[in-house]
Amino acid sequence: MIVVFEENATKEQIDKVFERLQEWGFTPVLQHGEQTSIAITGDSSALKTETLEAFDGVMKAVRLHKPYKLVAKEFRPEGTVIEMEGGVKIGGKDFAVIAGPCSVEEEEQYVETAHLVKKTGCRILRAAVFKPRTSPYDFQGVGEKGLPWLKRVKDETGLLLCTEVMDPKSICKVEKHVDMYQVGARNMQNYDLLRALGKSGKPVLLKRGLSGMIKEMLLAAEYIMSSGNHDVIMCERGIRTYETATRFTLDISAVPVLNQMTHLPVIVDPSHPAGKRAYVNALAKAGVAVGADGLIVEVHKDPERAWSDGPQQLTFEQFEQLMKELEPIVNVMGKKLNGRTPPQKGGGEASGWKR
Amino acid sequence: MIVVFEENATKEQIDKVFERLQEWGFTPVLQHGEQTSIAITGDSSALKTETLEAFDGVMKAVRLHKPYKLVAKEFRPEGTVIEMEGGVKIGGKDFAVIAGPCSVEEEEQYVETAHLVKKTGCRILRAAVFKPRTSPYDFQGVGEKGLPWLKRVKDETGLLLCTEVMDPKSICKVEKHVDMYQVGARNMQNYDLLRALGKSGKPVLLKRGLSGMIKEMLLAAEYIMSSGNHDVIMCERGIRTYETATRFTLDISAVPVLNQMTHLPVIVDPSHPAGKRAYVNALAKAGVAVGADGLIVEVHKDPERAWSDGPQQLTFEQFEQLMKELEPIVNVMGKKLNGRTPPQKGGGEASGWKR
Amino acid sequence: MIVVFEENATKEQIDKVFERLQEWGFTPVLQHGEQTSIAITGDSSALKTETLEAFDGVMKAVRLHKPYKLVAKEFRPEGTVIEMEGGVKIGGKDFAVIAGPCSVEEEEQYVETAHLVKKTGCRILRAAVFKPRTSPYDFQGVGEKGLPWLKRVKDETGLLLCTEVMDPKSICKVEKHVDMYQVGARNMQNYDLLRALGKSGKPVLLKRGLSGMIKEMLLAAEYIMSSGNHDVIMCERGIRTYETATRFTLDISAVPVLNQMTHLPVIVDPSHPAGKRAYVNALAKAGVAVGADGLIVEVHKDPERAWSDGPQQLTFEQFEQLMKELEPIVNVMGKKLNGRTPPQKGGGEASGWKR
Amino acid sequence: MIVVFEENATKEQIDKVFERLQEWGFTPVLQHGEQTSIAITGDSSALKTETLEAFDGVMKAVRLHKPYKLVAKEFRPEGTVIEMEGGVKIGGKDFAVIAGPCSVEEEEQYVETAHLVKKTGCRILRAAVFKPRTSPYDFQGVGEKGLPWLKRVKDETGLLLCTEVMDPKSICKVEKHVDMYQVGARNMQNYDLLRALGKSGKPVLLKRGLSGMIKEMLLAAEYIMSSGNHDVIMCERGIRTYETATRFTLDISAVPVLNQMTHLPVIVDPSHPAGKRAYVNALAKAGVAVGADGLIVEVHKDPERAWSDGPQQLTFEQFEQLMKELEPIVNVMGKKLNGRTPPQKGGGEASGWKR
Repeated sequence: MIVVFEENATKEQIDKVFERLQEWGFTPVLQHGEQTSIAITGDSSALKTETLEAFDGVMKAVRLHKPYKLVAKEFRPEGTVIEMEGGVKIGGKDFAVIAGPCSVEEEEQYVETAHLVKKTGCRILRAAVFKPRTSPYDFQGVGEKGLPWLKRVKDETGLLLCTEVMDPKSICKVEKHVDMYQVGARNMQNYDLLRALGKSGKPVLLKRGLSGMIKEMLLAAEYIMSSGNHDVIMCERGIRTYETATRFTLDISAVPVLNQMTHLPVIVDPSHPAGKRAYVNALAKAGVAVGADGLIVEVHKDPERAWSDGPQQLTFEQFEQLMKELEPIVNVMGKKLNGRTPPQKGGGEASGWKR
Repeated sequence: MIVVFEENATKEQIDKVFERLQEWGFTPVLQHGEQTSIAITGDSSALKTETLEAFDGVMKAVRLHKPYKLVAKEFRPEGTVIEMEGGVKIGGKDFAVIAGPCSVEEEEQYVETAHLVKKTGCRILRAAVFKPRTSPYDFQGVGEKGLPWLKRVKDETGLLLCTEVMDPKSICKVEKHVDMYQVGARNMQNYDLLRALGKSGKPVLLKRGLSGMIKEMLLAAEYIMSSGNHDVIMCERGIRTYETATRFTLDISAVPVLNQMTHLPVIVDPSHPAGKRAYVNALAKAGVAVGADGLIVEVHKDPERAWSDGPQQLTFEQFEQLMKELEPIVNVMGKKLNGRTPPQKGGGEASGWKR
Repeated sequence: MIVVFEENATKEQIDKVFERLQEWGFTPVLQHGEQTSIAITGDSSALKTETLEAFDGVMKAVRLHKPYKLVAKEFRPEGTVIEMEGGVKIGGKDFAVIAGPCSVEEEEQYVETAHLVKKTGCRILRAAVFKPRTSPYDFQGVGEKGLPWLKRVKDETGLLLCTEVMDPKSICKVEKHVDMYQVGARNMQNYDLLRALGKSGKPVLLKRGLSGMIKEMLLAAEYIMSSGNHDVIMCERGIRTYETATRFTLDISAVPVLNQMTHLPVIVDPSHPAGKRAYVNALAKAGVAVGADGLIVEVHKDPERAWSDGPQQLTFEQFEQLMKELEPIVNVMGKKLNGRTPPQKGGGEASGWKR
Repeated sequence: MIVVFEENATKEQIDKVFERLQEWGFTPVLQHGEQTSIAITGDSSALKTETLEAFDGVMKAVRLHKPYKLVAKEFRPEGTVIEMEGGVKIGGKDFAVIAGPCSVEEEEQYVETAHLVKKTGCRILRAAVFKPRTSPYDFQGVGEKGLPWLKRVKDETGLLLCTEVMDPKSICKVEKHVDMYQVGARNMQNYDLLRALGKSGKPVLLKRGLSGMIKEMLLAAEYIMSSGNHDVIMCERGIRTYETATRFTLDISAVPVLNQMTHLPVIVDPSHPAGKRAYVNALAKAGVAVGADGLIVEVHKDPERAWSDGPQQLTFEQFEQLMKELEPIVNVMGKKLNGRTPPQKGGGEASGWKR
């Protein structure tokens, strides 16, 4: 942190800031040059620039260091690869597609969807039994009734399960059944939840809040990491802007920004920002090409009958088509779709998507 | 809800929508005119327009009725006046100023602030012992340690206490000590919390989320009301926009919009959107003149030493000055500042603020 | 400007920046302290922080001085009062209400509206004969055909006229007929227009762009002032945000921010952000109480028949009512509505609005 | 357009709307169903929903048809391919990269950049001699002095030239020297300019305004097309949001949305939203994969010395690298980079970028 004073700042004003910083336990260093300034050495992450700018005589306070530590690129420059059961990885050379219905609705339909997801090569299934909803009168998820269905799906397909949790209590309810937690956009700054997930021992997919700044998202991940859990996946899912042609505005630039700032893997949700399935295919491809480590995509057997977010869920056919179209782009980006070695180029084998 | 079809929609397409609506338990009514349309009678609040627009042949689905009920103006056209201990009211002809430090920090300082707040005629004190913070390394509130201080303040001053709660658990911790709960901006859509507050039996001050739409704020209040608690106060506190000259953008228009849509009282927080104390006075006055039922203002004995949000907290002198300047505007608006009968106009008494 | 280097910046990196600054004609001063930094003395307003941050080894570049000069508060600390024909003032103790229809449509109706505006005590009339419209198929203003009507209105009422101009050419067309130019929101950064207005010799009402930052608005005013015209009035008229309950989001905080940053008068347009006449009254009052120097309000004889922006235009009755309700707030703020000495408080005269 | 009435709307209220619509020249059709409604047949694009909603008894007015015509997909379902001199195409199977410096600065440097751009296979060069700048004290472009340089560049390289114009006057100045006009973000709604370009006879690259809605952008294109010029290229270049990690927020979804709504080609500008060259490569790739028809990219011989937007301009090496990396993605998308037939897959030739 550096505090720059007005040219006409008095000695009293400068001394006051200096002493206050000492009183707060920092080590200020006075610098005389064109304009007097004070540099603060050591960790000043708990100090706000606004606090310093509120002093008389201060022209500007500037944070030089980042307010987060564990999530910073420097903490693990080689990047984090999250390893899960069965050799499933998120990060590195693996491009992971997490797929499934917006919410778990009915047992048979869910099982059928799981088999489709598996057939396309995906290895992680959406398993949302709790749904936060804007209106108290909307469907709120099947709740604990759906837990046996999760077990059945896992037994039959071997897919890993990713479920949204909305409060510390619900972690306990689902922890035996799932492999990965999701923090929804509304809860990006629900700190009790983040701390609880920091002690959960399973990977956490952290969605960006509707008005979450990238630096706030990093600090939210820092809550989880500083509570003990280093397996965090950042997820860009669209922010709220004035444009209404799509449900949210996918901030695709968040991917290269996060890739520069943090070692954590970054995935893209093309379904929520689209709001309409017609746009999901294009946004998913953009997610691959921009350098994301994966996608989370909604697919439903009968979207017109879905109990939530029907318009943005792909049909089975659309999802299979998407997976076929994604693979060559994933490969051009030097990655393997769901861990699968890319088909040989040239040679006798017809290129294209095939397992 | 009305569903309008494309001019070239086929009978099959129209029938499909019609039958699906019946299957979902609605009562569709076919209307033939220039363009075929289907009206849905009865409560269709759980049905999304996007769901219907995803059907082939549908040009547009339009919601005619509001998705909320209990918070709607029509539910209580005369407006809600919340009555608390000691005759303190929020709503109606009373203009209530809730004041106090951003967070409770130290006992003596807090007591001193309480006396200042009381001296200015206010009757409700901010009593934040838990603080949600963006960084895990920031001060997180004094926590339960501060509860005896709240008791002392209440005994000494008789002020009512308003405290932020962040999860259902913390309600239990503070319920004996406080008179009113606050839901912070980050938690506007924390539905477990809202439902728990719906059963709490005390008034709830509901702050608008950083990217909360007015209709989402109404639905958040609907969560509380539909869980049993009708004493909700809506609070506009600034939204996130591209403008960085202030901390947030106070959406002052939210006040007349909410006044038109809901019977619940509406207050304004001028401190958070300002971000700097220099702007708080002007925004507070705007809040009065725009028709709010009250304000929530931050005041601190020594803002430069505050542990959170120092730059936006008023000094004692500034707060006293503000209260003096507010009263004539409150009176012009036909209201009584903190329930106090306005000084006589004309006559022998010098006008101006005096108790 | 101050350039702070990374702790591990090399001498070569630092020298490169230093030399480049010299090459560009600046006077850099090296400062060694905790971290090396370079202060740039003199005017560096043409230099961008991003340019400097693009050099290797640079941690941060911080602008210490404002990029504008003539509009800055310091340039005229006592504040600008714009004086027009007939003793009409904008700024200082005078609170000016500019009123009239969104666009000039028909002669008789326009004349009638002018008389109503005059009757309420206003002294400046909206006189929009050119209208920028989003669609090429919308009414684009009556154009030059309306100029004789402006003359008639002026002869009959003595009101000053304020008209929107959209390009340098149209200034010539209207200059003999009007007293004040308006730059619409779409043209806040139409620099050819701003420069032309800088040479026009008449006051300019500069509306904030839909996504204009306050500092950009100041720089737009700087274009006008630096071209020779110091009579600029800043107008906050709402910005574009995600909220759709109102047409735009009135950024009421822009008023105290501008009052702090510039000596120029600041007025509020409550009509455009409201989008619906039901909210105009409340927003107008907020504009007074927040410290604006005036308002620009739309009023129409028959808003349901207006050719543009009908829903937000007040009826004659609503406008008269608004003017009555505004005056006591204007007086509490220590100002005179349209230059009128406030009615005596107490004493024999009945208080209330009367000329 | 359909106007739906409140259930308790009176016959008088309904009749009033009906008669007003007739008076305005529309053909209203009364529909009685669950709720009375009026359908308006024929072209109602000049009628605003707000105008109708301002009538008593009206619950909602809904526009069923789009307010634009010539830009609509239906007008030319096969899509527009813009053909320029030398067989250069924008749209269809050709993926066009327009490249060059942010602004033309010095003759030799500009010529050198042109040769680099040509070498990478691009066929259209940025040729900005006029620059709109936020501050009056910033470099405003070399102006007419640069026109001979444009001629030299064209003679030497055969590249087509694309230049920004800011007002009708400047079209005349440059028309002999350039092949394509660009409308900058600040001028998306400068209607005089759009109309003048509608008569210019050369393709127009229309950039989205900083707060331009997609439908407004379509209407801006409609201004150009309805004035006679059908060769319009839409350009997404980032919108203004609250996020500050990038200069603007690239609204990547605008591409599939525009592809669905209009037949006009759509290109992406990755440079301006990035604001930093480190993010340009990723955003450019996202633009290809999302389905754009081209890119406009800034490249500079010595970005640190650039007179405008240095930080976001690629170096020659970075630009060459980008072009190499783009081609396989362009080919996967089924397109030809700058009209070049993709290298054979398989076979003896080593794949990779080569001309």
